[in-house]
Amino acid sequence: MAVARRLAVLGVGLIGGSLARALRRAEAVGEIVGCGRDPAHLARAVELGVVDRAETDPAAAVAGADLVVLAVPLGAMRAVLAAAAPALAADAVVTDVGSAKASVIADARAVFGRIPRWFVPGHPIAGTERSGVEAAFAELFEDHRVLLTPVAETDPAAVERVRRMWEAAGAVVETMEVAHHDAVLAATSHLPHMLAYALVDALARLEGHEEIFRYAAGGFRDFTRIASSDPVMWHDICLANREALLGMLRRFQADLARLADAVEAGDGETLLATFRRAKAARDAHVLGRGGG
Amino acid sequence: MAVARRLAVLGVGLIGGSLARALRRAEAVGEIVGCGRDPAHLARAVELGVVDRAETDPAAAVAGADLVVLAVPLGAMRAVLAAAAPALAADAVVTDVGSAKASVIADARAVFGRIPRWFVPGHPIAGTERSGVEAAFAELFEDHRVLLTPVAETDPAAVERVRRMWEAAGAVVETMEVAHHDAVLAATSHLPHMLAYALVDALARLEGHEEIFRYAAGGFRDFTRIASSDPVMWHDICLANREALLGMLRRFQADLARLADAVEAGDGETLLATFRRAKAARDAHVLGRGGG
Ligand SMILES: NC(=O)c1ccc[n+]([C@@H]2O[C@H](COP(=O)([O-])OP(=O)(O)OC[C@H]3O[C@@H](n4cnc5c(N)ncnc54)[C@H](OP(=O)(O)O)[C@@H]3O)[C@@H](O)[C@H]2O)c1
Ligand SMILES: NC(=O)c1ccc[n+]([C@@H]2O[C@H](COP(=O)([O-])OP(=O)(O)OC[C@H]3O[C@@H](n4cnc5c(N)ncnc54)[C@H](OP(=O)(O)O)[C@@H]3O)[C@@H](O)[C@H]2O)c1
Repeated sequence: MAVARRLAVLGVGLIGGSLARALRRAEAVGEIVGCGRDPAHLARAVELGVVDRAETDPAAAVAGADLVVLAVPLGAMRAVLAAAAPALAADAVVTDVGSAKASVIADARAVFGRIPRWFVPGHPIAGTERSGVEAAFAELFEDHRVLLTPVAETDPAAVERVRRMWEAAGAVVETMEVAHHDAVLAATSHLPHMLAYALVDALARLEGHEEIFRYAAGGFRDFTRIASSDPVMWHDICLANREALLGMLRRFQADLARLADAVEAGDGETLLATFRRAKAARDAHVLGRGGG
Repeated sequence: MAVARRLAVLGVGLIGGSLARALRRAEAVGEIVGCGRDPAHLARAVELGVVDRAETDPAAAVAGADLVVLAVPLGAMRAVLAAAAPALAADAVVTDVGSAKASVIADARAVFGRIPRWFVPGHPIAGTERSGVEAAFAELFEDHRVLLTPVAETDPAAVERVRRMWEAAGAVVETMEVAHHDAVLAATSHLPHMLAYALVDALARLEGHEEIFRYAAGGFRDFTRIASSDPVMWHDICLANREALLGMLRRFQADLARLADAVEAGDGETLLATFRRAKAARDAHVLGRGGG
């Protein structure tokens, strides 16, 4: 089932590259044009068969495309969209994959003076801590959720096309209100990344940190896996979703202070009650959805 | 190579059960006697072939044993050791597997009025978030470190016997100073567990938390895996290693406050620098030691 004659993927990294691979495998698109800054990365994307051809100029990449996916870091969305804007085809639907949504919507408004009806903000809830086209694989989105956050201005027909694109990539599509998306992702993704980065950095700054890391077991490796994620991308996310993230951070700081006070006071009841609630919640809502 | 004629394992759960299984597989012990509170758990341990026979009374379990392993939660160490004490054989070496060491040493001193020369404090750096004898498996300690923390009073010959026991189970044994052990483990294990529990509990207390967990991706599952660990065991660890844990917690709180302030101020430089240091440290010291 064709979802596009010509697909332009702006940013052929983990997410853009994986989407291109998935749609190619599903035979859902005619031609795929990639775009990025580094010609060497693009050459590799062509070599790997991820895209058919590549352009470093966003305008050249989107010319003649009926479906455009913005898959650059959040901090680059506005500039890339602005560069592509003059060359967008009249029938083109544009979507993005950014991990925060209010900021991308603000970018679209800044570039076009309003939210275009053919612009569909989106976010695949899938990823790994790796980045770049070499890390891309066709199965990344299979049975994963994609959240679309259309606004009042958005054309339902455009939402439908983007939904079909993600379904062709094996994903399960849902729609969600923008602010709700940003709050939920701050809680389940952005705050955990901050904590993992902060913990590893705190340990790295301890005296004798090389020895300390040597005694880290499997639990530590899993817990800190997300601290191997791309720093630029996460810096962008933290700034783009600043308000929602800050709300969760401040709440977590207060909770952690209460827990630290309980440790200090030897208040075993508070510790046990907290740990029990947490285990019960994780076992009920997270466990069993693949791999413990 | 025999490391014991008769081994008594007090607490036949994940750690005690796995050690029993590993030593049995290595044909390193004659008889294995298990001990616990719940006869049903013990019956299961016999049924699974983890122990040869079982006792609910620690004194009965250690009678005639030349090697005794304390593998109960930290909060139970003192009582179990006191119950076993009158029946300990003259040639018996006693070791433990507790995740914090100063507290167990204090327990031994409380029970015997001094640190017995045949008591060897130890800690295998291996585990999973599961517990109980059903979760035990012989390979748990293979190529994992075991830290022994002998004190001035400890007989080197006793340390040597415990070392041989762990090596027979496939582990790599090192010795470490008690306070250093407790500080290192507070950093790499106890603090991460507190953070994982605190995060899951914070999310579980949000309105609409069931929906929120639904949008958690693989990164969240890995990050929170340790929050599925046994609450009682971790409550014990937090209280037993209170001082070292509190030191790390207070330090982390200060670091997190700085990071939150950077988010609030839109200070991208601080965020980027922190994330970069963390990724570099994890990639250098943790990655590549199995599974990313
Ligand atoms: N990774 C995840 O887990 C995940 C999950 C869901 C959503 N997302 C979102 O997906 C987007 C991409 O993330 P990713 O993980 O795919 O990152 P990535 O692997 O680093 O890919 C980003 C790509 O964008 C290109 N790029 C970067 N800056 C650019 C610019 N200024 N102009 C044009 N191209 C640029 C890069 O190529 P060049 O270096 O050659 O320019 C790179 O190939 C982000 O918005 C992120 O928030 C990520
Ligand atoms: N899990 C890890 O990742 C890990 C790693 C390294 C070290 N450790 C340490 O290993 C020890 C055991 O942990 P585990 O993970 O093996 O826990 P576990 O699976 O829950 O096993 C503990 C065993 O001790 C018995 N027990 C509990 N309280 C007792 C008491 N008061 N008297 C006698 N027996 C008692 C329990 O059996 P009944 O319920 O039948 O009494 C249970 O089988 C702890 O000290 C922990 O700090 C754990």
